[in-house]
Amino acid sequence: MSTPISPLAPKTIPDMPAITGVRLATAAAGIRYPDRTDVMLAVFDEGTSVAGVFTRSKCPSAPVEWCRARIKGVRARALVVNSGNANAFTGKSGRTACALTAKLAGAAVGCKMSEVFLASTGVIGEPLRAQAFGGVMTQLVASASLDAYAEAAKAIMTTDTFPKLATASARLGGANLTINGFAKGAGMIAPDMATMLAFVFTDAPIAAPVLQTLLREGVADTFNAVTIDGDTSTSDTVLAFATGGARTAPRISRAHDPRLVPFRKAFNAVLGNLAEQVARDGEGARKLVEIVVEGAVSKSSARRIAMSIANSPLVKTAIAGEDANWGRVVMAVGKAGEPANRDKLSIWFGGIRVAHKGERDPAYDEAEVSMAMKKPEIKLKVALGLGSGRDRVLTCDLTQQYVAINGDYRS
Amino acid sequence: MSTPISPLAPKTIPDMPAITGVRLATAAAGIRYPDRTDVMLAVFDEGTSVAGVFTRSKCPSAPVEWCRARIKGVRARALVVNSGNANAFTGKSGRTACALTAKLAGAAVGCKMSEVFLASTGVIGEPLRAQAFGGVMTQLVASASLDAYAEAAKAIMTTDTFPKLATASARLGGANLTINGFAKGAGMIAPDMATMLAFVFTDAPIAAPVLQTLLREGVADTFNAVTIDGDTSTSDTVLAFATGGARTAPRISRAHDPRLVPFRKAFNAVLGNLAEQVARDGEGARKLVEIVVEGAVSKSSARRIAMSIANSPLVKTAIAGEDANWGRVVMAVGKAGEPANRDKLSIWFGGIRVAHKGERDPAYDEAEVSMAMKKPEIKLKVALGLGSGRDRVLTCDLTQQYVAINGDYRS
Repeated sequence: MSTPISPLAPKTIPDMPAITGVRLATAAAGIRYPDRTDVMLAVFDEGTSVAGVFTRSKCPSAPVEWCRARIKGVRARALVVNSGNANAFTGKSGRTACALTAKLAGAAVGCKMSEVFLASTGVIGEPLRAQAFGGVMTQLVASASLDAYAEAAKAIMTTDTFPKLATASARLGGANLTINGFAKGAGMIAPDMATMLAFVFTDAPIAAPVLQTLLREGVADTFNAVTIDGDTSTSDTVLAFATGGARTAPRISRAHDPRLVPFRKAFNAVLGNLAEQVARDGEGARKLVEIVVEGAVSKSSARRIAMSIANSPLVKTAIAGEDANWGRVVMAVGKAGEPANRDKLSIWFGGIRVAHKGERDPAYDEAEVSMAMKKPEIKLKVALGLGSGRDRVLTCDLTQQYVAINGDYRS
Repeated sequence: MSTPISPLAPKTIPDMPAITGVRLATAAAGIRYPDRTDVMLAVFDEGTSVAGVFTRSKCPSAPVEWCRARIKGVRARALVVNSGNANAFTGKSGRTACALTAKLAGAAVGCKMSEVFLASTGVIGEPLRAQAFGGVMTQLVASASLDAYAEAAKAIMTTDTFPKLATASARLGGANLTINGFAKGAGMIAPDMATMLAFVFTDAPIAAPVLQTLLREGVADTFNAVTIDGDTSTSDTVLAFATGGARTAPRISRAHDPRLVPFRKAFNAVLGNLAEQVARDGEGARKLVEIVVEGAVSKSSARRIAMSIANSPLVKTAIAGEDANWGRVVMAVGKAGEPANRDKLSIWFGGIRVAHKGERDPAYDEAEVSMAMKKPEIKLKVALGLGSGRDRVLTCDLTQQYVAINGDYRS
């Protein structure tokens, strides 16, 4: 993983405040990478609510199946995440590895196996040697601290070039709440879910069903609106944990409780921030691309058209080449299968209208557009002129580096 | 267009026999490329039937709309195809350019404008200067000959690295029939239609509705079963012309006339041959990849899963890296949204089973698979174990060269 840090990386890593009831630790279990941490443990105080959203892949990983079966238990005491091995397509041995990991963590933390949540990321199809966690689990529990977020985010990286962290605060009743999160991304990133792994923690006293609603609704326009390569991972997982450590906040049991409005806004900001960092660290990415589609017949139609553009190899390579090739945008709109009328279509790159009502905009200045395309952040807008449906997705360009990274990842 | 010829190109260009009633000519009209031919004219004898299949893009090119509106006329006297400019997303000027081209060709050939069929390939969004055809049209008609297939195939190339030609013969009644075809491909290649342009000619005396049925059915498992990059062109067009020049053959007016069986087989062979050549000349391609999916719940489900694999950037980059990364195949099966059961899934690369019933096949020999992956032609088979649905698609690998070609095509 000697790839240099993405030029689109945030300039600084945020200071992550402590959250009462969440302690983190990392270790090097030797799963795959030499000389780096590859396992992360989070220990939660009793009474922590959990919610999760997972890949819609028909071939999910063993940890995804493990979490899905246990998320209804609504309580969590521990989270174990490893990098280097996805424990996906590992058959019976994958299930055994999950059970062993949960047993080891449960024994060390002092909780039930069913209160342990799991995620794995890395190579698919290699058996995961979960015994390796046995050697580090006691040390992990002993060293767990309130301030190890940056280390935790680093331990779960694979082809990521920087750790992805975000924090926000919100008022609930008279209390100040904190929301912390971290994620990993890089490749095999497409909606349902959009990131391989993301974890969000808060001290809010929120019941699990409420947390589940917040997470499901929040993910729709954040992680699910990011695509790197259109490839949906077998392991995509977002888990949210609410410890209730903010004792002075009112306990919330309805998702649409009006007191929750500021919290929901901050929670979505953390999800959105992490999702954007995933796009910024797309494998080989040199440009962050925001695609806005408006004037569609509905929001979902706008989403499908935006995704068709975002996943088009020809659009993505043109952007890598700093070429405002709107003809390829027309192509991607046309192939989406959604209502579109060529003669009403307008297209902007970097705020400059290059095509209008089905033709090249005669007024546009090629030199000005060329300047806009050289920037590291490109906004591409399409107006369909049919209705009021609007949506936005984030992606990155497709570079020779993406091909190089993925042509020799396993070998 | 200085790209070297694809290493997957056929070793020889076939000898193309004459077809009574089809004469071809090429010229350099100076549309975009210096020092090469860029326009092709085919002149047909009276009584030639025509059939066509076009892109399903919602933003089709002007020539696609021109042909679609006239294909019901069932008769063709001329076909004009240019490269260098797709006449797509050119608004009213695109329609005017079509009409002018047809007018010029009609005057030179001596037929109605409605009997002239058109196709254009190249850059999207630039107005096509159809006046340029005026200077060469008389010369084209005068020089049209029975044996200019190779020149015609060359004149319509864009990023293609070799001309794509195929021929076959078949008996109908007591007569020997010939079927000739040529195509262009390279990029923006995905189903509905699969190639940008392909043209098939025969001396068979076949009524237009029969030809339309043959073409529609033949395209489904040939051109529509090829994908280079999942990007569907605005200009995809396959046209078939039947001159009836084989005067001793019986006239066919029903698509399922049993006498047509050998002809249909030969016709499909020409379509299949051209479609394979399109895959062999995918932009930057170094591997021809045949993907077979069997044991699906239906043929259409098998097709969707095969396309999900064929369009996955991660599968395609792994093949470019000669890596039998079946984990990514699992991912692509899982994201297709079709019925699949991880624990029944088996995967073969180059005839070697690497995964069986949801796990790595313990018997497979990595060295043997590595050897198979070095070959220029790779067969990837997936068995789902659910039903008897089977399908096959062709694609190519995704190389750094694809990104290089498409990062600076327009500029």
